[in-house]
Amino acid sequence: MTRLHNDPAAFADEALEGFVAAHRRWVRPVPGGVVRATAKTPGRVAVVIGGGSGHYPAFSGLVGQGLAHGAAVGNVFASPSAQQIRGVAKAAQAGGGVLLMYGNYAGDVLHFGQAAERLNGEGIPTRTFAVTDDISSAGPDEAHKRRGIAGDLPVFKAASAAAEQGSTLDEVARIAAHANDRTRSFGIAFSGCTLPGADHPLFTVPEGRMAVGLGIHGEPGIGEEPVPTADEAAELLVTTLLKELPDGIGTPHGQRAAVILNGLGSVKYEELFVVYRRVAQLLDEAGVTAVDPEVGELVTSFDMAGISLTLTWLDDTLEALWTAPADTPAYRKGAVPEAAAADEESYEAEEGPEAYTASEESRRAAATALDALRLLKETVDTHADELGRIDAVAGDGDHGIGMQRGSTGAYEAALEACELGAGARSLLTAAGDAWADKGGGTSGALWGIVLRALGDALGDTERPTPASVAHGVLRASDGVRRTGGAEVGDKTMVDVLVPFAETLGQQVDAGAELTAAWDAAATAAERSARDTAHLLPKMGRARPHAEKSLGTPDAGAHSLALIVRAVHGALATCQ
Amino acid sequence: MTRLHNDPAAFADEALEGFVAAHRRWVRPVPGGVVRATAKTPGRVAVVIGGGSGHYPAFSGLVGQGLAHGAAVGNVFASPSAQQIRGVAKAAQAGGGVLLMYGNYAGDVLHFGQAAERLNGEGIPTRTFAVTDDISSAGPDEAHKRRGIAGDLPVFKAASAAAEQGSTLDEVARIAAHANDRTRSFGIAFSGCTLPGADHPLFTVPEGRMAVGLGIHGEPGIGEEPVPTADEAAELLVTTLLKELPDGIGTPHGQRAAVILNGLGSVKYEELFVVYRRVAQLLDEAGVTAVDPEVGELVTSFDMAGISLTLTWLDDTLEALWTAPADTPAYRKGAVPEAAAADEESYEAEEGPEAYTASEESRRAAATALDALRLLKETVDTHADELGRIDAVAGDGDHGIGMQRGSTGAYEAALEACELGAGARSLLTAAGDAWADKGGGTSGALWGIVLRALGDALGDTERPTPASVAHGVLRASDGVRRTGGAEVGDKTMVDVLVPFAETLGQQVDAGAELTAAWDAAATAAERSARDTAHLLPKMGRARPHAEKSLGTPDAGAHSLALIVRAVHGALATCQ
Repeated sequence: MTRLHNDPAAFADEALEGFVAAHRRWVRPVPGGVVRATAKTPGRVAVVIGGGSGHYPAFSGLVGQGLAHGAAVGNVFASPSAQQIRGVAKAAQAGGGVLLMYGNYAGDVLHFGQAAERLNGEGIPTRTFAVTDDISSAGPDEAHKRRGIAGDLPVFKAASAAAEQGSTLDEVARIAAHANDRTRSFGIAFSGCTLPGADHPLFTVPEGRMAVGLGIHGEPGIGEEPVPTADEAAELLVTTLLKELPDGIGTPHGQRAAVILNGLGSVKYEELFVVYRRVAQLLDEAGVTAVDPEVGELVTSFDMAGISLTLTWLDDTLEALWTAPADTPAYRKGAVPEAAAADEESYEAEEGPEAYTASEESRRAAATALDALRLLKETVDTHADELGRIDAVAGDGDHGIGMQRGSTGAYEAALEACELGAGARSLLTAAGDAWADKGGGTSGALWGIVLRALGDALGDTERPTPASVAHGVLRASDGVRRTGGAEVGDKTMVDVLVPFAETLGQQVDAGAELTAAWDAAATAAERSARDTAHLLPKMGRARPHAEKSLGTPDAGAHSLALIVRAVHGALATCQ
Repeated sequence: MTRLHNDPAAFADEALEGFVAAHRRWVRPVPGGVVRATAKTPGRVAVVIGGGSGHYPAFSGLVGQGLAHGAAVGNVFASPSAQQIRGVAKAAQAGGGVLLMYGNYAGDVLHFGQAAERLNGEGIPTRTFAVTDDISSAGPDEAHKRRGIAGDLPVFKAASAAAEQGSTLDEVARIAAHANDRTRSFGIAFSGCTLPGADHPLFTVPEGRMAVGLGIHGEPGIGEEPVPTADEAAELLVTTLLKELPDGIGTPHGQRAAVILNGLGSVKYEELFVVYRRVAQLLDEAGVTAVDPEVGELVTSFDMAGISLTLTWLDDTLEALWTAPADTPAYRKGAVPEAAAADEESYEAEEGPEAYTASEESRRAAATALDALRLLKETVDTHADELGRIDAVAGDGDHGIGMQRGSTGAYEAALEACELGAGARSLLTAAGDAWADKGGGTSGALWGIVLRALGDALGDTERPTPASVAHGVLRASDGVRRTGGAEVGDKTMVDVLVPFAETLGQQVDAGAELTAAWDAAATAAERSARDTAHLLPKMGRARPHAEKSLGTPDAGAHSLALIVRAVHGALATCQ
């Protein structure tokens, strides 16, 4: 379990601080993560990687010459926010454009996508690439839905080495796609990790059993078997990977491959070597030459006990990129050219306004919104553990933590905005941006959209009416559906948000008071949250064993239902 | 726990095989361990390190340019045998002499010492150096008794870098001593490791508690406290180390230090970084400049949960050696010069004779000895877990495994010798050498001496008599006392061996049959083993909490008592 921490909520930030303190030769801190400490080469493409904390050396440990130019570092198991990614990309970019790279998880896809949109809007040519190497997370016909695990490394490295050689953004993106097409991983696990501050594991595997294909956040795998011998484990991993060769490779015989035997945290080095002994024999028997094999901990999940095997099938281009030198805190190979240290630049977070303009009526509405955000935050705090447990059934278990960080950040930003005289729109916009930034994950992005939509509907001058509130909720509902791509019945927060928004609108249209309308809508939301439990999830990260979640509500839907009930209290008090 | 293995008895060998398969660029296998894969520079001093398996990257992961020239790799938690060390040293040496380096544990001291003696006898100038950095294992006035933990790395590196620069053997040895004088470590732990094949941890720490100064094999620490916050852990480690500055350093202010925050296995990277954040702050406040800090897993104990902090107080010489480039499987820094690959050399284990000369009478005695060795091996197999548990109370828990490997190796060597017509002396000598080689640890060396002494007394021609057997046991007893340095009452196997030898001698002198005399001596040995339980250990590795072992027999004494009783069966059958 994870034992050493201070305030668990500060864990990821403090870990990043300590990481930087230990690795000043390679990295320097910027808002949102780290960038290389070495001087930029003007005109080069910058490769910016990122993801949640808890996977070291992914992602910050892979920043340095020959590998990434920067890493956006999210909270524990949560995507960095679009704002963080944008901050790191702006600090890392050298005029040649930016390739954002990450593992294929819904929250990351959302935030990196939003960051790319904003960066392109600011004149920095930016593309995105999601690694999809975990073959247990979707079939070959849905390879684009697969999760990214230890295959992150060879794909990041191929793109980064191409960037280092002066390739254009389009070429670097093409290399990333090519490396990803030729990279496959497969893993097994024996136990889950315990997150900082938690008193029990996020997920478990029965004693003496092995979960096949279990995700690094506990996403369900494709089967369960008795713990194998080391040789049996090697045979399972190798034969599974040799069954799914990339297009254009008919037989493994005569092929060359980058090989990574990755430990997830507490399967230790000697055990990995015992397994690798057999992996090497089997590859040899199959006629595959292992090129610069890596046996160690490259993508971890705290102290999770598990291993994965990754093969990247090399052609001449990819072999040159895989064997190119690199010098990062956690990955060093060959000799990189001497490089000057970067000039001391000051990377300041962008500041908000010093004061807001708003009508007195809108300021009163903002005070009500602040009260609602306080109740919301308290509700989330009370239920954070429960939300994490529910999310772990079919997701990565980060919902409780993410919601807690997001709602706390939103409340604090709202409090500051309130003290600076913000109206309802400004307060809710500040709160929404803070939620997306601090909360990370899919839920962070979607809650940011909800609060912004509400704020837009309320404005900074008018007195809110039941109609404008209902209109804002409807816009929030539309925005979440559009951004997340989910519809009612997919077992997401949309199942709750849509009936809530519709009931609220109907009640208000029928002349109900806001509190009464909200009460009726909250009841509809609660009913829907209960109904959700009986559905199969259709959205989000790969869920090959989604049926395991039958009977469990979706965490996002459940938290939304709790929140709309809690917010009712704020409305009742002020009306 | 450790889950991935095949035959647990083959674990260390298979791990080494897989390690070599993954790291052919750096190392090549030789009998006993590994040496660099790069060509030798004639005349250079070779630094050969070593110790038990289970501590990766110590020791094999530290072989390569700028660091060690070779590593002797023992079994799990057991010293390599003198034979292994000698094999590695002979393959690594380049004409400039050899410095053997290891952590200060009784078994290592014994085997590396014996290896040095043999190497010097073969004309290879060899010196030994034991690292003693763990300040929790003995007071400053007994610093030479301290254990070696993560301070191994800076001391090995200083000596190796000096060797790389062409220093003489005496100079390299002087640098090792100087670096060791200036290196201090201190650690805390939360849980023990489970050895391959075992179904429960070798040692435990109560849930929610922290053991202060717990050794990496479970040797008792100096106290127990509640699990601290990360900041409190950092404060404990830094303030403790700053209290014991090396001679000549009056105040930490203005000093420069190599800093290693080491994870023992399942305290993971982000946790280490959270702790290092505060370590860096505290060192900064004390005016200490951290030079090339290392935060990661450098000396492990399988999946043990714990951390240690090491400071090496640098002067100009040591700083140049610490920051010098190195390129090994697990430790890379800067750019080493290009080096050619070593020529393919064949490192064959030395072969035994193809046939033995012996009298028929001695061959019959050898058959009895073989039968005794079989009973011995079966007794050890039956009690291996129990012996490990007993040893873990005040030792490193390797007694069961070591005895099992040793007795199995001895029996197999004896069987082979028997088939080749060996007499009693040749059979027992082969068995003794195999025990020392396969068993490792202190017990391996001492049992090797016991069997050799018995063989010398019995010869290859005469018919053994009760008097010659009793004489051999007495010589074995003397040899063990002399080599191990223990006396009766120190709570070691000597407590059992001496009364056994004395009673046997008295009974035989009084005219008793051998089986009757042996029976009486075994009874005396058993009584002594029971009495041993009430003593405080005075010998062996640092045992600051030796009182914890009050009421528990010494594992070596206990196993010897079991064995002399079992061997009685072999004598009874043949007489």
